[in-house]
Amino acid sequence: MKIAVLVGGTGGARFLHGVVTAFPQADISAIVNTSNDVTVHGLRVCPDLDTAMYLLGGAVDFKHPNTHPDATQTVQAELSRYGAEASWYPLADREIATNLIRTQSLDAGYSLSEVTDALCDRWLASEGERVNVHLLPMTNARCETHVVVDTETGPRAVHVQQWRHKNGAQTAPRSLVQIGLDTAEPTPTVIDAITDADFVLISPGSPAFSIATILAMPRLHAALVATKATVVGIAPVIADAADGEHATPHGVMRSGLQALGVSATAEAIGRHYGGRGEGGVLDFWLISMDDSADIAGVVTVSGDVEMATPADAAVLARAAIDAASGQA
Amino acid sequence: MKIAVLVGGTGGARFLHGVVTAFPQADISAIVNTSNDVTVHGLRVCPDLDTAMYLLGGAVDFKHPNTHPDATQTVQAELSRYGAEASWYPLADREIATNLIRTQSLDAGYSLSEVTDALCDRWLASEGERVNVHLLPMTNARCETHVVVDTETGPRAVHVQQWRHKNGAQTAPRSLVQIGLDTAEPTPTVIDAITDADFVLISPGSPAFSIATILAMPRLHAALVATKATVVGIAPVIADAADGEHATPHGVMRSGLQALGVSATAEAIGRHYGGRGEGGVLDFWLISMDDSADIAGVVTVSGDVEMATPADAAVLARAAIDAASGQA
Repeated sequence: MKIAVLVGGTGGARFLHGVVTAFPQADISAIVNTSNDVTVHGLRVCPDLDTAMYLLGGAVDFKHPNTHPDATQTVQAELSRYGAEASWYPLADREIATNLIRTQSLDAGYSLSEVTDALCDRWLASEGERVNVHLLPMTNARCETHVVVDTETGPRAVHVQQWRHKNGAQTAPRSLVQIGLDTAEPTPTVIDAITDADFVLISPGSPAFSIATILAMPRLHAALVATKATVVGIAPVIADAADGEHATPHGVMRSGLQALGVSATAEAIGRHYGGRGEGGVLDFWLISMDDSADIAGVVTVSGDVEMATPADAAVLARAAIDAASGQA
Repeated sequence: MKIAVLVGGTGGARFLHGVVTAFPQADISAIVNTSNDVTVHGLRVCPDLDTAMYLLGGAVDFKHPNTHPDATQTVQAELSRYGAEASWYPLADREIATNLIRTQSLDAGYSLSEVTDALCDRWLASEGERVNVHLLPMTNARCETHVVVDTETGPRAVHVQQWRHKNGAQTAPRSLVQIGLDTAEPTPTVIDAITDADFVLISPGSPAFSIATILAMPRLHAALVATKATVVGIAPVIADAADGEHATPHGVMRSGLQALGVSATAEAIGRHYGGRGEGGVLDFWLISMDDSADIAGVVTVSGDVEMATPADAAVLARAAIDAASGQA
């Protein structure tokens, strides 16, 4: 069985962990968002790729995939003492090694796909065994999301990471500006993964900051429309995000939806992705049991979409495949 | 009083510390060797500049200036786990911050002189007080010393840092190859520092790996010949280096001298630098009390050239200036 998963952020990484756990025999490709990537201190940082890699590789905790369990920040502290501009970006020492290798390899002319393969050789393979997933950056082109926020001197566009980590996502963005995405092309491997899949799963990552950017590439969108695979989206759980908690993943997700003009409900997000018969990408839309959604051309199914534990994520992954197989 | 000091390696950094301590009112310029610089993991590393900066800034111990007192190597350990090629080069986490800032600034088009000034702003200035020394890279051009060693497949040139840290300086070099030094120009500030000095002091750094590379630049050499300053060289203490201790600074110094065809004695090294009247650079040559040296056109003076403590280094610095002032 071939499964392609669209992945971004912590929700995406957790869900991918569930897919890998639930279907150990499957041939799984993860198409990972790169629009959150950023260059800080001259280092190319790929948060969504690395969160997935570290989580699947057992280097971080399922509950806190953005933080190494015993992460030191010695380099970061020194950078701050030098007064380095981007010291607002949280870099664990261990991550710096990953970023050094990536930056050096990119500078040497390797593609992000090739570099990702090389990094995953360490985390996803050991003693002949390999985690049954291939992490694919959605594109080898350089893409970055900027958010437009109001300041005292008028609207200003800042990198999404600067907004999240320097501003603490306190200022609601007016709009999102995608740098590089209009000319970015998905890699051939990404297109093949979608075309050859039996199932395509759209993870419950942030719709604005993770999934919409993957879907924004015309050739990738077209491949999703054309694939023989059944496409199942999983609604991100957002109902429990209190309005005030800007800096939480849910707060950030909500701000992003607001900037897109999409309500923070499963129905609105599902309609934003759209049904395959209606120019969108969904066949099925998996939402919370106490929720409802009416989306043209899409079969809505319900399940437990919370992922507090790895076991939860595996159950959710199985529910998505069951729905698509008509076994829900 | 204006003093220019030619600096390289740990001996050079310790001696410079002594000059700064002994002459707190002097205007001191340190002309620092850059031919030990190396790029590892995409980071530009300047060992001689940084050893001097850290030692003067109180960040490292006088006895072990190459090691931060509580240095962690988390990034280094991760790089090794990735199998990164240059993981033989010892990088403390704190140094990585320095190297990141330097590399990023060089990539942005700043010169090494400008970058060094910016880095020293942190270490050599605090609350309006500034350590009375200006650290000057000898050139802004990129220079690197390679050593030619015999291998099973014939002679091979490797970077001096690779030879020191990967090979442990075990294989005696046949010869030294200087990359970039033939076209390197000293900066105008370096030439001014020599021309305007009352005293030029040649520190007891490694003759082959630190001092000879500074002297190899024709315009710098000419400025030393022409300056109105009195030039005093301090012989590196090498008599106590047992032949077998390749990896020690003295062992490395001895191997370098051997590659240059210079005996490891104060007299031979002094003759290698030469008297100012004879096309060389020395007016005075300060050697160990139990030693002797006969060098054409050079006044030999003796003193305690060991530098076990900061106080020793200050005494040695004063002895050098006293000799040049006719007060020895």
